Amino acid sequence: MPKLIEHAKRKEMIAEAAWKVILEQGMEGASVRNIAKEAGISLGSLRYYFASQNDLLGFSRDLIYQKTAERMTRIFKLDMPPKEKIVQVLLDLMPAAGETKLEAEVRLVFKIHARHQGEVFDAEKDSVYLAIKEVMSYLVLLNLLKKDADVHLETERMYSLLDGLALDGMIRPQLLETHKLKRIIVYHLNSICMEEF
Amino acid sequence: MPKLIEHAKRKEMIAEAAWKVILEQGMEGASVRNIAKEAGISLGSLRYYFASQNDLLGFSRDLIYQKTAERMTRIFKLDMPPKEKIVQVLLDLMPAAGETKLEAEVRLVFKIHARHQGEVFDAEKDSVYLAIKEVMSYLVLLNLLKKDADVHLETERMYSLLDGLALDGMIRPQLLETHKLKRIIVYHLNSICMEEF
Repeated sequence: MPKLIEHAKRKEMIAEAAWKVILEQGMEGASVRNIAKEAGISLGSLRYYFASQNDLLGFSRDLIYQKTAERMTRIFKLDMPPKEKIVQVLLDLMPAAGETKLEAEVRLVFKIHARHQGEVFDAEKDSVYLAIKEVMSYLVLLNLLKKDADVHLETERMYSLLDGLALDGMIRPQLLETHKLKRIIVYHLNSICMEEF
Repeated sequence: MPKLIEHAKRKEMIAEAAWKVILEQGMEGASVRNIAKEAGISLGSLRYYFASQNDLLGFSRDLIYQKTAERMTRIFKLDMPPKEKIVQVLLDLMPAAGETKLEAEVRLVFKIHARHQGEVFDAEKDSVYLAIKEVMSYLVLLNLLKKDADVHLETERMYSLLDGLALDGMIRPQLLETHKLKRIIVYHLNSICMEEF
């Protein structure tokens, strides 16, 4: 494997180990020591890829954003009706499905943690916020959004709704059932659109 | 002060110290040692009131629920039009206002933390969920809710929306501005009701 690609792969592998540690032990357990252990490498090796814990955590968060954005792009390219794509994209942001569970949960832990670091959380970088903005643009483009809807407020409202749903999906297992999350998401879409989803 | 009342007051005082520690250091900093220090009492004194950390944290969480419920009852009894009361109640659940900020934030930290304890979060005990159920009942009673609305789904939707807004209120200070939270809440009420709020 070329060296540059191997370097990038190793960084991703370490970031994925960080996700696991964060999910199992919370952000307070996400020390470089614990992450190196989870990744099965020495602390020295880890330091070769990441100069500091902040570097490593920042990279791990950005990788979640990137993976989510890639998944969204894949769904939007699928051969299915636009309305189905929109439902699929929103549902895919939830921690319900097997593959997306880890990413959705870790994203939320990162978001919640922003507060303890005293940093101002930048929603404009958050892949979920960006996905919702895209969904809103499509709803406008397809003439689906109700005429009196305020696009900015609808974006904020859907963003908060999905965060709240993701949180409940994490801690109320009965909500984890995909069909219930889907019902709420479709219900919300129906309420803001002129056609049934 | 009679002994029983003093005992109850001391427990509340310790619980309020716990809130402060949780808010400043997160749940991971909420050791009995740190809480005793914040309350300005010895570890021995604290143990006289709470046998274990779990006892103390459970009591602190329930006290949040209780204070929130009392505030809701006070608002519902105010001499103002029903629709204004409903807006006031929902806004009061947000971490925006000075007095409610601490309680709203600590409640959310407790909720998020339920996951790490491996316990199943019981929304039916959560004062915010109960307040929303009450709001929904009033909307039905007052014939305000749209006829095709699904009351159960509307309850879940508003619960997730308010959790997401509270989270954003904590980490995106620009959302903290009460008037913006109010705009989203009123916008949501307008979208589910037949009359303007």
